Amino acid sequence: MTRTASEQVVIVGGGFGGLMAARSLRRTPVRVTLVDRRNFHLFQPLLYQVATGGLSPGDIASPLRHVLKYQKNATVLLAEVTGFDLEKRNVLLRGGERLDFDYLIVAAGVSHDYFGHDGWGRIAPGLKSVEDAIDIRTRIFLAFEKAERAVDSEEQEELLTFVVVGGGPTGVELAGALGEIARETLRHDFRRINPGDARILLVEGASRILTSYPELLSRKAQRSLERLGVTVLTNTLVTSVNERSVDIKAGDNIRSVPAQTVLWAAGVRGSGLGGILVGNGRSGMDRAGRVLVNPDLSLPDFPGVFVIGDLAVVNNPGSKPLPGVAPVAMQQGRYVARVIDRTVRRKSPPAPFRYRNYGSMATIGRAAAVADFGWLRLSGYPAWLAWLFVHLMKLVEFENRVLVFIQWAWNYVTKNRGARLITSEHRSSDR
Amino acid sequence: MTRTASEQVVIVGGGFGGLMAARSLRRTPVRVTLVDRRNFHLFQPLLYQVATGGLSPGDIASPLRHVLKYQKNATVLLAEVTGFDLEKRNVLLRGGERLDFDYLIVAAGVSHDYFGHDGWGRIAPGLKSVEDAIDIRTRIFLAFEKAERAVDSEEQEELLTFVVVGGGPTGVELAGALGEIARETLRHDFRRINPGDARILLVEGASRILTSYPELLSRKAQRSLERLGVTVLTNTLVTSVNERSVDIKAGDNIRSVPAQTVLWAAGVRGSGLGGILVGNGRSGMDRAGRVLVNPDLSLPDFPGVFVIGDLAVVNNPGSKPLPGVAPVAMQQGRYVARVIDRTVRRKSPPAPFRYRNYGSMATIGRAAAVADFGWLRLSGYPAWLAWLFVHLMKLVEFENRVLVFIQWAWNYVTKNRGARLITSEHRSSDR
Repeated sequence: MTRTASEQVVIVGGGFGGLMAARSLRRTPVRVTLVDRRNFHLFQPLLYQVATGGLSPGDIASPLRHVLKYQKNATVLLAEVTGFDLEKRNVLLRGGERLDFDYLIVAAGVSHDYFGHDGWGRIAPGLKSVEDAIDIRTRIFLAFEKAERAVDSEEQEELLTFVVVGGGPTGVELAGALGEIARETLRHDFRRINPGDARILLVEGASRILTSYPELLSRKAQRSLERLGVTVLTNTLVTSVNERSVDIKAGDNIRSVPAQTVLWAAGVRGSGLGGILVGNGRSGMDRAGRVLVNPDLSLPDFPGVFVIGDLAVVNNPGSKPLPGVAPVAMQQGRYVARVIDRTVRRKSPPAPFRYRNYGSMATIGRAAAVADFGWLRLSGYPAWLAWLFVHLMKLVEFENRVLVFIQWAWNYVTKNRGARLITSEHRSSDR
Repeated sequence: MTRTASEQVVIVGGGFGGLMAARSLRRTPVRVTLVDRRNFHLFQPLLYQVATGGLSPGDIASPLRHVLKYQKNATVLLAEVTGFDLEKRNVLLRGGERLDFDYLIVAAGVSHDYFGHDGWGRIAPGLKSVEDAIDIRTRIFLAFEKAERAVDSEEQEELLTFVVVGGGPTGVELAGALGEIARETLRHDFRRINPGDARILLVEGASRILTSYPELLSRKAQRSLERLGVTVLTNTLVTSVNERSVDIKAGDNIRSVPAQTVLWAAGVRGSGLGGILVGNGRSGMDRAGRVLVNPDLSLPDFPGVFVIGDLAVVNNPGSKPLPGVAPVAMQQGRYVARVIDRTVRRKSPPAPFRYRNYGSMATIGRAAAVADFGWLRLSGYPAWLAWLFVHLMKLVEFENRVLVFIQWAWNYVTKNRGARLITSEHRSSDR
């Protein structure tokens, strides 16, 4: 190694992709700055557990500084990125500060997409952040509380109807957890209502849920959900959302479902930083606002600038886009770190990025799941055990594993969800 | 038992007093309605751990419905009490609903007191609710983040100065935890600042901290705090608080301490419900807004109406008021339940309430505490072990004990505080 550790790598976003990129650069002679507007990494695959009162936010969050504390070449910056100057090679932060870079990795992720109906967001929250999860948790448990106090039976029905929009893994996990809450968790908790009477609808536009899975697993997942009391509506679109009902359309048939709790798991859209990076209005993005990148994940015309994770889509019209899951982001983070390492060391670039799919899984309630490892497909209890094992193993890297495991075991045995706090945004001194 | 279970007991507040009263009435032939504006009981003695990132809110909260789920004569109502009609014997809820009662137990607790400077509340939050704790947690960890980014050394000093106002148990616990955060938790986390340089001031108006403890234990507590880097200022009053500094007065000497983080643990004031109960402006309250009650904890002139816990003060000019701690509230809850039980069963009333003091304790950082059992006084590590044991035993009743214990053991070994999330009040869809 003859070069000094002077080249600067700026990573925007401390999710799975950004954090993995930072860690993979630990032996590369560069200075790494990880910028995030939050001070923690979030284990998003378990966020639905926070939204449904099974885990606390602290159980699935790891302070970024803590994860990188012993990595001497890494600095964490709590800041919001507001712009990029790719010609002058710097990143603009809120407040006016600029960070120079030699290499830039943008891993800013995605947010919800309401397909043009942004007003629905206030009524039907999506699940991306800790705040979203706490908001959803409050809505779910408050609906039962309000139903207990409701005098009007029509209002009670609205309050006890939960609509989950979108039959992907998040929608399936939310609906399954809701089924469990209504049938198990709250079983003996109320005196005037029977929580088991709650209606839970999972609405999916395609002909089956979990479309990225083999058809057999979709069917098994649907059956598991139905056993938990969830009504699965496929080939059904949501056409309107308001505070007391949802309009759904199946074929030519539109009907209104009275429901006060609507959860949105239907679509994602690339972070606004993608547009800022490639210039809004310019080409360079797909319809979902994701940034088109070269096969080595670099931005066309800007070598040394990379986009990874959910925000990136490899510009290869023939191939299927990669799923928006943690393993893709992590493999991309590791890959880009390798590209940078080899460039810094003046070695030949590696072969284009290729995703190695080790399998995917989704869980349904407290003892069922579907898992597709390609060579092996599981459903029901064995899939759930596999899901539990994989997620605990993954959590170990961010050292919350023991706690989460205990919490889970506890919830499993007691059928309780201790973290079902209804909190507000006000401090007691404000009251 | 010849009476039918028709008499109605309404309990306002699900803290230690109210919840204990509800549980103690489980075999009494009455219907019990517990009203709280939150859906959970909070284990307040550990709230400072949430405020300092050691535990998550879910770890110290128990859903009230869950605690009372198998108590058939008890109903939980999530509602806000806005008034009382003691003549007609009913309680008014926000929204207009009224709850009739034969017996009423008001256990609404206390909030912060800024001694007439209510504007300080926005700058110097107190610690009573989960939201307070999360606000304080955000302020503490954000201050270190901002200091890391500060370019101006004066601003950096302001950001790294923490003032805790009030040297009672809460103030001592907060200051001790701050010392530990600065010296241990964040030790390797920053690159530009040394968190160990943080100044932590504990300001107390009296001549010593922990005035309710024997003098020897106060001295030992002060020494333990000083070992954690806390500066203890006794005989010192806070005369002004603004966003960038605090004015403190010792004797005739007033000086300004530049500090952006000020935590308030100086005084409490009875819940506003106390005033509503006895009629604001009337006598019937002490100077701190606590309700004066008869020796059997009933309201003068209103038999069957009781006030317990922090909100109550027994009208007995000769005696010392009871401390505002959980054991007092719990014993009072149990006592009032007994009064009601004996009245319902037409037995003679019990002897006036007498508090049995089994001891008091306060913890300082991760391995020191003071404990006063009357017959035994402990400090340092043995006191900390006693503190740990007692608090875990107490938590068992609300079944979070296992988790909290694991979390503590984990924090103790790793010196980490995993729950140090900086969260905002906005959902991601709002952005």
